[in-house]
Amino acid sequence: MTEAFSYRPLGRDGGARLGEVITPRGVVRTPAFMPVGTAATVKAMYPEQVRELGADILLGNTYHLMLRPSAERIAELGGLHKFMRWPHPILTDSGGFQVMSLAGLRKLTEKGVTFRSHIDGAYHEMSPERSVEIQGLLGSDIQMQLDECVKLPSPPEDVARALRLSLRWAERSKRAFEAQPPGRALFGIVQGGDVPALREESARGLVDIGFPGYSIGGLAVGEPQHVMLGMIEVVNAILPQDKPRYLMGVGTPDDIIEAVGRGVDMFDCVMPTRAGRHAQAFTRFGKINLKNARHADDPRPLDETSNCPAARDYSRAYLHHLIRCDEMLGSMLLTWVNLAYYQSLMQGIRAAIAEGRFEAFKAEVKEGWARGDIPARG
Amino acid sequence: MTEAFSYRPLGRDGGARLGEVITPRGVVRTPAFMPVGTAATVKAMYPEQVRELGADILLGNTYHLMLRPSAERIAELGGLHKFMRWPHPILTDSGGFQVMSLAGLRKLTEKGVTFRSHIDGAYHEMSPERSVEIQGLLGSDIQMQLDECVKLPSPPEDVARALRLSLRWAERSKRAFEAQPPGRALFGIVQGGDVPALREESARGLVDIGFPGYSIGGLAVGEPQHVMLGMIEVVNAILPQDKPRYLMGVGTPDDIIEAVGRGVDMFDCVMPTRAGRHAQAFTRFGKINLKNARHADDPRPLDETSNCPAARDYSRAYLHHLIRCDEMLGSMLLTWVNLAYYQSLMQGIRAAIAEGRFEAFKAEVKEGWARGDIPARG
Repeated sequence: MTEAFSYRPLGRDGGARLGEVITPRGVVRTPAFMPVGTAATVKAMYPEQVRELGADILLGNTYHLMLRPSAERIAELGGLHKFMRWPHPILTDSGGFQVMSLAGLRKLTEKGVTFRSHIDGAYHEMSPERSVEIQGLLGSDIQMQLDECVKLPSPPEDVARALRLSLRWAERSKRAFEAQPPGRALFGIVQGGDVPALREESARGLVDIGFPGYSIGGLAVGEPQHVMLGMIEVVNAILPQDKPRYLMGVGTPDDIIEAVGRGVDMFDCVMPTRAGRHAQAFTRFGKINLKNARHADDPRPLDETSNCPAARDYSRAYLHHLIRCDEMLGSMLLTWVNLAYYQSLMQGIRAAIAEGRFEAFKAEVKEGWARGDIPARG
Repeated sequence: MTEAFSYRPLGRDGGARLGEVITPRGVVRTPAFMPVGTAATVKAMYPEQVRELGADILLGNTYHLMLRPSAERIAELGGLHKFMRWPHPILTDSGGFQVMSLAGLRKLTEKGVTFRSHIDGAYHEMSPERSVEIQGLLGSDIQMQLDECVKLPSPPEDVARALRLSLRWAERSKRAFEAQPPGRALFGIVQGGDVPALREESARGLVDIGFPGYSIGGLAVGEPQHVMLGMIEVVNAILPQDKPRYLMGVGTPDDIIEAVGRGVDMFDCVMPTRAGRHAQAFTRFGKINLKNARHADDPRPLDETSNCPAARDYSRAYLHHLIRCDEMLGSMLLTWVNLAYYQSLMQGIRAAIAEGRFEAFKAEVKEGWARGDIPARG
């Protein structure tokens, strides 16, 4: 176990980067997908299962954890890794995004944001310093600065104001983070909405402050994919090659593969887990809705070639039945299917970059999605 | 694989019987606890997990399965074992109990019962012949005759009428069952409420008809434990020693150990699975309610000596947190804990009978429950 945090580039293929994010708790092979463990659990999965699928790192949500069971309680119990039985790296967000989307009665000032819990209405304060303190109490390996994320579309002046505030908060976050033990990392977050010049301003400002890694925030919030990809290109032309880049909250398999081609290393998204609780399966044939009555008599598994038992061993008829009956096992199996698909996609991406055939791999994968599901025999 | 169904007695200790129920799909070690897989799933568990805990046989609910996805659909898909990925023995109830407790607009005649589905209001008919036909379509290894189960307390004349109807239905069920492939078994069900003479009449009537096994129904429906145990004693004095006896829908660990001491071989109950979804853990220290705030800071597992990872590896603080957040993993872990406890109790019971120390084992186990939970250190 090394005590330093670092990014080790292992190769490139066009814009796509192969690498490793090295932390004292383990190595994260990049490009990486981080399953989301909002409330200290990847919903409907045992932690060992998530690990076995190939996840090197999980994401935890600071906002949810500060409210329940609280950062102080988790710290007393030995930290988030021990609490949720995930001894491998954990990345936490700053809590800011959920404060803006979930909490009530928000008030934002230069100092920070005050809000009421969406659970019990209790009053809370969140500043750049407090966010870093909470993430430190959790024991997070990769922490995020508090930022302000505006909805898109927003007037450019609002976007500019938010990114400049976020830059000032980035500096404060970095200072507050100095109190933490070595081996952990704090990432700055690029904002700037859908305005290229503002994205540039944000990225340059963060690079001037200097971080061991950079996040790209404020995307996948409703804008078309081409806008998102355009912003990634603008930002990644500025971010240093020797630091990891994390595209926050993204996305569909297609979003991920396109962003990898533009130099993104890390991703997180609730999509595979949330979809798994809503009858949607991600497969190499594209998305399959198991709620559809056409599956009721289909004895075939979702994908007989899959390494995932949930995709390989259970009939579509059975999955359909479990969903109709609102049985927990339906969510358990489809979440498993989806996380397995996402991790196998990342594995395929990494292998393709290593072998210099990323573009061919991308074309193959997209062809599979476009071809769609194999029709039932007979 | 043998083609015959049989019961093989292996030993006795007082009233307690050690044995094996032999079916073409496998051997059921008795005394046995059968986890309940109502809608073709033991809720919140993967089938492999249930097996690994030591379950030799599951129970499926005919009423639920006939409504969704329907017996005909399951038959077309290759039977219930294949559908739910449980290649080991399955016992099904007749559907009658749930018709009486869940369905709407019931009408009971000599011929059978008509009712409306509690799911979509659709009209259904259930006769002794149809119940056996459905169980045959499911491919059930151990099937139950349709019976009428009265609530307790009921006037003795109602109890008598119901048991006599059930006896006539037993004969019709046996005739209908002759159409089924060899190796399967149909059990007659003893009724008679809380009236010893009526229990005797029912048991003798069934023995005269002749079944490969006998169920004791209509108990654990609200009567005190001593009444239930008294009825078991009356009935088991009449039932033949060379056939298995199944006490339907029972019960608490204490009910089970007391009934084993009175010669019962098989049990099923939703208690461990349902309690697991309601924050209750069964342990060797008795029942523990994880919803209780006293667990919020408790780093200890439920039982560090348990073989079950869910009981041994997760802190009470974490389990409490999952329950407070209504996280699926909370139900998954506590269901696992509870089924593990029930199966380990059955294993202990079987070992104790084999070694002639059933009474000592019973006393030990009850002492553990009475002593209660270990207080937190510090």
